[in-house]
Amino acid sequence: MARLKLKLQFYCGDEIAMGPGKADLLEAIAGEGSISAAGRALGMSYRRAWLLVDTMNRCFVRPLVEAHPGGGKSAGAKLTPEGEAALAAYRALSVQVQSGTAGPDFEKLEVAIRGEPISQS
Amino acid sequence: MARLKLKLQFYCGDEIAMGPGKADLLEAIAGEGSISAAGRALGMSYRRAWLLVDTMNRCFVRPLVEAHPGGGKSAGAKLTPEGEAALAAYRALSVQVQSGTAGPDFEKLEVAIRGEPISQS
Repeated sequence: MARLKLKLQFYCGDEIAMGPGKADLLEAIAGEGSISAAGRALGMSYRRAWLLVDTMNRCFVRPLVEAHPGGGKSAGAKLTPEGEAALAAYRALSVQVQSGTAGPDFEKLEVAIRGEPISQS
Repeated sequence: MARLKLKLQFYCGDEIAMGPGKADLLEAIAGEGSISAAGRALGMSYRRAWLLVDTMNRCFVRPLVEAHPGGGKSAGAKLTPEGEAALAAYRALSVQVQSGTAGPDFEKLEVAIRGEPISQS
């Protein structure tokens, strides 16, 4: 049975303001209370997590993540109300879009694709 | 204004049986009549185009592309009826899914994202 993977990316100019990886990071920051712990939980370097947060904060009208004063790797961070709202809207939209795949075109593709590929020719 | 990019990928085991790049390649093969010309039209090496075709042919129950006898870079190729059907279903599903993004969650994200990111902090 073929599996459909749906990726929703919101662009802001040439940068990706919101997508699956950034949504996961927001969720992890909300749960972990810091950017570094969220990055670790996702197997991501602190630098990479920080860059994703910076991109989101520059792309949205209001910042999605607020870093607590203190600085350094141990500084805490949390989602702003706008961050909570953006994450919730992105998750809800993903579910909506996923459910919108039902129908004959999806079924045609699903039945035409093998469960596993045959070996390389 | 934020732009939403939607990517639909059908997996077959760990391989991608169908996605945006493979659909574009099928379309180019149908138009150009050969894998090498289709690859060139998309700025893709012959090797890469051939590998994408091979993956599709191994992932689908019936091959999507049929290479004409002759071999070599100049050999012709065309879509099988199953290739035409898979391409049409994928394009139709993409349009369907795109139209399924309308609603309050999409609008919330769209208004919250800038047209261009502000400069790096």
